[in-house]
Amino acid sequence: MVKIAFGRLGGSFSVGSIKAYLFEFIATLLFVFAGVGSAIAFSKLAPEATLDPPGLVAVAVAHAFTLLVGVSVAANISGGHLNLAVTFALAVSGNITILTGFFYWIAQCLGSSAACFLLQIVSGGMSIPTHGVATWMNEIQGLVMEIVITFGLVYTVYATAADPKKGSLGTIAPIEIGFIVGANILAAGPFSGGSTNSTRSFGPAVVVENFAGNWVYWADPLIRGGLAGLIYRDIFIGCHTPVATSDIYA
Amino acid sequence: MVKIAFGRLGGSFSVGSIKAYLFEFIATLLFVFAGVGSAIAFSKLAPEATLDPPGLVAVAVAHAFTLLVGVSVAANISGGHLNLAVTFALAVSGNITILTGFFYWIAQCLGSSAACFLLQIVSGGMSIPTHGVATWMNEIQGLVMEIVITFGLVYTVYATAADPKKGSLGTIAPIEIGFIVGANILAAGPFSGGSTNSTRSFGPAVVVENFAGNWVYWADPLIRGGLAGLIYRDIFIGCHTPVATSDIYA
Amino acid sequence: MVKIAFGRLGGSFSVGSIKAYLFEFIATLLFVFAGVGSAIAFSKLAPEATLDPPGLVAVAVAHAFTLLVGVSVAANISGGHLNLAVTFALAVSGNITILTGFFYWIAQCLGSSAACFLLQIVSGGMSIPTHGVATWMNEIQGLVMEIVITFGLVYTVYATAADPKKGSLGTIAPIEIGFIVGANILAAGPFSGGSTNSTRSFGPAVVVENFAGNWVYWADPLIRGGLAGLIYRDIFIGCHTPVATSDIYA
Amino acid sequence: MVKIAFGRLGGSFSVGSIKAYLFEFIATLLFVFAGVGSAIAFSKLAPEATLDPPGLVAVAVAHAFTLLVGVSVAANISGGHLNLAVTFALAVSGNITILTGFFYWIAQCLGSSAACFLLQIVSGGMSIPTHGVATWMNEIQGLVMEIVITFGLVYTVYATAADPKKGSLGTIAPIEIGFIVGANILAAGPFSGGSTNSTRSFGPAVVVENFAGNWVYWADPLIRGGLAGLIYRDIFIGCHTPVATSDIYA
Repeated sequence: MVKIAFGRLGGSFSVGSIKAYLFEFIATLLFVFAGVGSAIAFSKLAPEATLDPPGLVAVAVAHAFTLLVGVSVAANISGGHLNLAVTFALAVSGNITILTGFFYWIAQCLGSSAACFLLQIVSGGMSIPTHGVATWMNEIQGLVMEIVITFGLVYTVYATAADPKKGSLGTIAPIEIGFIVGANILAAGPFSGGSTNSTRSFGPAVVVENFAGNWVYWADPLIRGGLAGLIYRDIFIGCHTPVATSDIYA
Repeated sequence: MVKIAFGRLGGSFSVGSIKAYLFEFIATLLFVFAGVGSAIAFSKLAPEATLDPPGLVAVAVAHAFTLLVGVSVAANISGGHLNLAVTFALAVSGNITILTGFFYWIAQCLGSSAACFLLQIVSGGMSIPTHGVATWMNEIQGLVMEIVITFGLVYTVYATAADPKKGSLGTIAPIEIGFIVGANILAAGPFSGGSTNSTRSFGPAVVVENFAGNWVYWADPLIRGGLAGLIYRDIFIGCHTPVATSDIYA
Repeated sequence: MVKIAFGRLGGSFSVGSIKAYLFEFIATLLFVFAGVGSAIAFSKLAPEATLDPPGLVAVAVAHAFTLLVGVSVAANISGGHLNLAVTFALAVSGNITILTGFFYWIAQCLGSSAACFLLQIVSGGMSIPTHGVATWMNEIQGLVMEIVITFGLVYTVYATAADPKKGSLGTIAPIEIGFIVGANILAAGPFSGGSTNSTRSFGPAVVVENFAGNWVYWADPLIRGGLAGLIYRDIFIGCHTPVATSDIYA
Repeated sequence: MVKIAFGRLGGSFSVGSIKAYLFEFIATLLFVFAGVGSAIAFSKLAPEATLDPPGLVAVAVAHAFTLLVGVSVAANISGGHLNLAVTFALAVSGNITILTGFFYWIAQCLGSSAACFLLQIVSGGMSIPTHGVATWMNEIQGLVMEIVITFGLVYTVYATAADPKKGSLGTIAPIEIGFIVGANILAAGPFSGGSTNSTRSFGPAVVVENFAGNWVYWADPLIRGGLAGLIYRDIFIGCHTPVATSDIYA
């Protein structure tokens, strides 16, 4: 069932592919800069407060808006992954090769780290907030939460961007991808951080040199990201006999 | 006038239809997970507070964004109902069969319940907030409020998604459907909860095993959801002689 | 220069036109219900507070989302005005006849009033907030503010919806129309209320039977709404020799 | 590498070009009016407070929504720059001539100043907030922050609006341009103001007659705005051999 592509190795080093890695790097940098930046901005504006609803809205909207843009900016060149879970799912389902996926992942991690280093410089050394499961939860609960919301994200990517039958939904795919992440931060923010994205979690951990608990955000794409890829491709695209639209809207 | 479709029974058990039920299940699960999750997140961030304006914004935006995505994800396969009111209206107006609508409803209720069970697990047993009419209102007032806003939602679905003459509006239909729900939560949240969706109200009631007052959210789709279906289809589509666009924008 | 259309009188009583009035009525009702409803919801959630930033965000987002939807829902049938300023501008520039515009206006005012009556019933008689210039401003200042933002709204309607050369911008026109109103509420809310819409201001005034200061929201469309209509049509559409796109993006 | 266009001088005085300047003027006026207006509105609603998270959300959303609309309104006529950084980048990459860019810049600065004068009148002489680097940062840190986020903005303009291979992304380009600015205000607001736009920073400085620290917002477009123009055009468009979409979504 799993159609992992080892062919087209040469494709991983073509000019087009290297351009794609560069786009992933830049788009991830911009996404993480605004996303993590909004969390730092909250710490600055409300220095004594723990996260409160207005801060959660600010952080969620910043992530939603900037991911929307990052995906759009890179969509035509690299597909606009910006996220290991997405890259992994597309590799598992055979849409990109494993090797290309690996280079995507390198580019994303570099972009995420570069964004956090830049933020540390411009903010005069404010601490960069890392993702972590809330102290009153155990990590398995956090992992389950991340699995559900990452499944939702990868599912959205397939249905709106990667599905060749997506039709006009493709036009607003970046909006959908950005907004599902924003919505999930509103839901999961106080619990697991609502990362859905190991790449996004990687940069802050590098900068503060603390990977404790980071495994939650890495186990996640390996489990449900890949699962969503398999489910969507094999069940819904692979053997697709769609409900006639006349059955839906007669 | 009411064209209820009993034909095409076989269609309710085709591979395509079963795929549609599965999509309704997954999309409803994702929608309710983020929607109810955002309400739980508010309780966590502001444990002693009753709902305040920032919390209302957070909950409304989470519902708007995630419904937008849920509708998009399922649009090409099941039509993206995620809501008994929508399914019922489309059945009444003959767009889907009664039997298919019944299976949609099962799939939606299972998705809604599954989301709430998952939330209870990952949040370490926090109480799942249920919909209910504010204590200082009587239930009839709550019912009227739900009827108005559900009418608005179903109307929007018809005009932007189900109307064969919708034109380019169809491209942003999921945005419109998500945003009308978000706007109505901002308006009706402190009064009737702003559900517009008996499916969304069902899951939390199952998990906390308390259906008191839940009838408001079930009477609603039977009344105005169906009404909107009849009005829109019979009046506006059924005997359509549109204003020439030259009359609108000469 | 002013091409007021008195012809096509019969067109004002055709089936298509009556359907258009009905759509204006319903769409305005839904818009005002959610818009005014969000202001009442704020009063309920923060009963002792005057408007604060989170409340302003809630009200602005509710208006933006619901106007977006209202315009979309009615766009194919009536053009989706929902606003006397828009109707008046389109009548002045000859896009619709004066008589049709008059019936649009009646339908809008009925929809706005109906929404406010419904809100009064379901909220158990809470007072409906009316638009008014802030007490520390004089009404001329309020009028100037409304004129600027209404000009912006009408201008947006022309550029994105009524301009035959709008191209793909038309796809997201309802988003633009909704968002400009949301943005202007964020800017003008604490000063003049940020109405941009005499129809929106009419309903609450009817229900509370207080039209004091309401003239500001009526003078406005007659001045700048009409002005924008004339400017846009006569200058930009009327004698259009567009910059070749190759001059913009060579 | 730098293809500065001095030709087509006559094009800078054509009817089409003058119309483009007028559109830039009006669109910038509307953008700055709502953007700066939202900052004044916050000062009014929370007179003693420094910027807090709800205020930041209000200001960011106002800028995002209104820039989205401003870009849309002017897109077909002038390209919808509303920003010296964008104009400069497009001039450096040869998309518009230097002279046309200069007139764009004049039109934008006039629009920005006019908006601020209008705001001062209607708000009864409230002080207009100017952009400035936070007092606890040095100006170089502020400059770096502005450079990163302006790079993101200009990059977005190229990828979604100016790139001839943008495809359906162009449909939602104004949304992307508005939202990246909104996201960056959420991230950079408490640090450098999150201007990304020397034109936006110019008007308030004119009205309060204080240009101290304003150089940060002018050095910025000259550095990274131009850089993004060169990078995008020469690397990604100039020698474009795109990754086949089959490599992305096989």
